[in-house]
Amino acid sequence: MAAKKKTAAAVPVASQPAKRGAQTEKDKKTLQKIERLTLEALKTVEKKANPALEIRTRALSNVSFNEKKRIIELGDRAQSREFFNTAMARKFMQTFLIASKAKTLIEEDKTVSIRQMFYMSKHSLKGTSENTFEDQSESDPIIEDLEVAIDALREELHLFANRRGLVVGKLVVNDAGDQIDLSRMGRGGWGIPSICEEKDLKFVSTKADFILLVEKQAVFHRLNEDKFWEKHSCILMTTEGQAARGARRLVQRMHTELKLPIYVLVDNDPWGLYIYSVLKQGSINLAYESMRMAVPQVRFLGMSASDYKKFNLTSAVQIKLNKEDIARAEQMKAYPWFADKKWQKEINDLLKNGFKMEVDALLTKSISFITEEYIPKKLRDKDFLT
Amino acid sequence: MAAKKKTAAAVPVASQPAKRGAQTEKDKKTLQKIERLTLEALKTVEKKANPALEIRTRALSNVSFNEKKRIIELGDRAQSREFFNTAMARKFMQTFLIASKAKTLIEEDKTVSIRQMFYMSKHSLKGTSENTFEDQSESDPIIEDLEVAIDALREELHLFANRRGLVVGKLVVNDAGDQIDLSRMGRGGWGIPSICEEKDLKFVSTKADFILLVEKQAVFHRLNEDKFWEKHSCILMTTEGQAARGARRLVQRMHTELKLPIYVLVDNDPWGLYIYSVLKQGSINLAYESMRMAVPQVRFLGMSASDYKKFNLTSAVQIKLNKEDIARAEQMKAYPWFADKKWQKEINDLLKNGFKMEVDALLTKSISFITEEYIPKKLRDKDFLT
Repeated sequence: MAAKKKTAAAVPVASQPAKRGAQTEKDKKTLQKIERLTLEALKTVEKKANPALEIRTRALSNVSFNEKKRIIELGDRAQSREFFNTAMARKFMQTFLIASKAKTLIEEDKTVSIRQMFYMSKHSLKGTSENTFEDQSESDPIIEDLEVAIDALREELHLFANRRGLVVGKLVVNDAGDQIDLSRMGRGGWGIPSICEEKDLKFVSTKADFILLVEKQAVFHRLNEDKFWEKHSCILMTTEGQAARGARRLVQRMHTELKLPIYVLVDNDPWGLYIYSVLKQGSINLAYESMRMAVPQVRFLGMSASDYKKFNLTSAVQIKLNKEDIARAEQMKAYPWFADKKWQKEINDLLKNGFKMEVDALLTKSISFITEEYIPKKLRDKDFLT
Repeated sequence: MAAKKKTAAAVPVASQPAKRGAQTEKDKKTLQKIERLTLEALKTVEKKANPALEIRTRALSNVSFNEKKRIIELGDRAQSREFFNTAMARKFMQTFLIASKAKTLIEEDKTVSIRQMFYMSKHSLKGTSENTFEDQSESDPIIEDLEVAIDALREELHLFANRRGLVVGKLVVNDAGDQIDLSRMGRGGWGIPSICEEKDLKFVSTKADFILLVEKQAVFHRLNEDKFWEKHSCILMTTEGQAARGARRLVQRMHTELKLPIYVLVDNDPWGLYIYSVLKQGSINLAYESMRMAVPQVRFLGMSASDYKKFNLTSAVQIKLNKEDIARAEQMKAYPWFADKKWQKEINDLLKNGFKMEVDALLTKSISFITEEYIPKKLRDKDFLT
C-alpha cells in the first residue's frame, strides 16, 4: 500500500452534525454578510447618494495562479454596480432580490437548486409586464456575483447545482442525522450530495488508508464489484465525469479532515487531464472558490501515456487524437501548474503516441486486470505524478 | 393517503440474495441459451450447410401495442443472418464473439458496461489488420441482436448501460449481501444499480404505502429534505431524466413484489409525458423487453396542464411551447395508449395552454409548496391519470 498503514480499529473523526432547523455559526455569519450588504446600500440611500455594489471581476484577465498555494485565484480588480445607471439598475435590483431569497432559505434552513432559485425570484413587477428575471441565464450570473460580493460559497447561500458522483468504502459518515456505513452500500454506492458542508455531513470514522477517485461510472462499478476498496482498505469514489461541486468539496474535506492521500484515475486524454487539473487547483470559471474546492496534493495515478508500453497494451486500446485533442493538450502544456518537466513529458508523450486511451480499455487484457494488476502495481511502485 | 394503510410493522418480503460467485438458476438458463445457439450453428456446419441466426427485426414495422397486456411488443418477423453471405459474415461472427464473452462474464460472475464489452471483444484478427469491431456503434446493436436471438435481457448477459437514479424511503433492501435501510440515507440517497435483477437485489422489508417517482433530481432533493417520504410512508425515487434500465426494472419489481401503487411526477411538457409513457408501456426501441420493464399500472400524478388554474399559479411558471413541443405533443396524441379521452384532454389542454411548466416552478408559490400542498392534495383527491 502506498499510504501508511493505520490500526485496524476505526478512527473516530468527528461528532454529530447539527440538527436541521438549527442555525449554525456559519449560517449566522452568512446572514450577517447579507445584512451588511443591505445596510451599506441603505446608508448610501439615506445620504441621498447613488448606492453601489463592489463585485470582483470574474474574467480571465483577473485570474492568476498562486505559486505558493498552488491554486487558481481571483484577483482584486472589481467593478462597481450602481443603482442610478440605466445599464446597471436591473442587475443591481436582481442582486438584492437573490440576496433576499437566500436570506429566506437560510432562515427556513432549506436548500434549493439554482433553477429553483430562478423560479423563487421570478415574478412580474407590480402594475407592469416587466419580469424580475426572464430566464435562468440571467439569474445564474447574479448568484455568482453575490457569492463574490459577500465572499460566500453558493452552498453557504443554501443553493446547489446538480449533483453527480458516488462513493463507497471504508468510511462511516453522518449525513443530516443518518449514520451511513459506506462499506455497506451494495453495488449502488451513496449518492454524493450537492452540498457537502460541515453542517450536514460529518465524517464519523474511517479505516481507509487512501482515497481512489475514478472519472468513469463503469470503472467504479468494476472496482466495486471486485471489492477493491475492501482488499486495499480505501475509499472509492467516482465523479461520473467532470467533478461536480459536491464531489470537489467532499474530496477537499476528506483530504483535510481525514488526512488521506488521494489518487486520481482518469482516461488518458486531455479531458481526463482537465478533470484532474480542476480537482488539483480549481478552474478559471470558479477561481474565487478554489481555496474551498481545490486540493493541490491530489496524485495523478493514470492513465499515463507510458502505460501503453508498461502494460503491454495492444493497438485495440488506441483512439486516434483528433484536432481538438491536440489543441487542448497544447493548451494544457502552457498551464503554469503543468510547467514541471515531468508534466511536460506526460503531455508530450500523449502527443507523441498520437492516440488516447480509456481506462475501460484495460479490459482488453482481462476483466479484472485493472483491479488485480494495474492499480496495485501503480501503488506499489509509487508510480504517480503530482 | 391514496393507498391502503398497512400495519406499522415492516413487512418482510424476501430472503437473502445469492452470494457473488454462485451461479443462479437464471445464470444457468442463460448459459444454456448461449450453448443452444452455438450447438445449432455447429450442427449445421457438420451437415456442410450454411449456418444462420434467426433474429427478430427491431424496426417500427415489427412493433405493435398489445391492447390486452397494454405494453409495446416486438412482432415475430425475423431476419436470417447467414455465415456464407459477404454482407452478413462479419455480423454473424461478431454475434458469436459477443456471445462467447457473455459466457465468460456469466461463468466468472462479473458484470461490465456495454463500452467495456466493446473493449473485451475488440482485437485484430491474427495475421491481418482487420479488427473484430471498429467502434462501439458496431458492438451495441450486436448486443441487442443477441438479446433478441436468445431471448435474454442484457442484464442476464451480465451487461449494463450507464446507471442513473436515486432512491430513499421506507424500504430495506439487500444488495450483493449488504443490508441497506433506505430510510437512513441522509441527503444523498442510494444510487440505483445498473442491474436490478433478483440475483443481486432483494427487497427485505417495507413500511411504504406507495412509491413516488419524480423526474428531476432537484425535486427529489426538495422532497427528501422535507422528509416527504417519512410523513407519507412512501418510497421516493428520481430517475434523473429519462429512466435508465436499472430504474425501470426496479420500478417493475417494486410494483410486482411489493404490490405498491406508483405515482409519477414529471414536468408538464411532452418530454415529461414521454418519460411517463416509457415507464408505462415501454419504448419502441426496446420493444422486445417491455414485459420485463414496463408497468402499465403506473399513475400520472402530474404536472397536469390543469394545475395552472387548480393551484392558482402565476405567469412566472409559463414557458412558451416551441414548434418541437407542439409536434411531439401531436405525436403523443396518436399513441394508442393515450387514446382514452382523459388523455386526449390532458394533451389538448397542454396545447391549448400554449405553455409548458416545470415541477420546479411550484417554488413560485413557496419553497415547500410541493411537499405540503401540491402532492398531498393530489393524493387526497385521487387526482391522477392511468
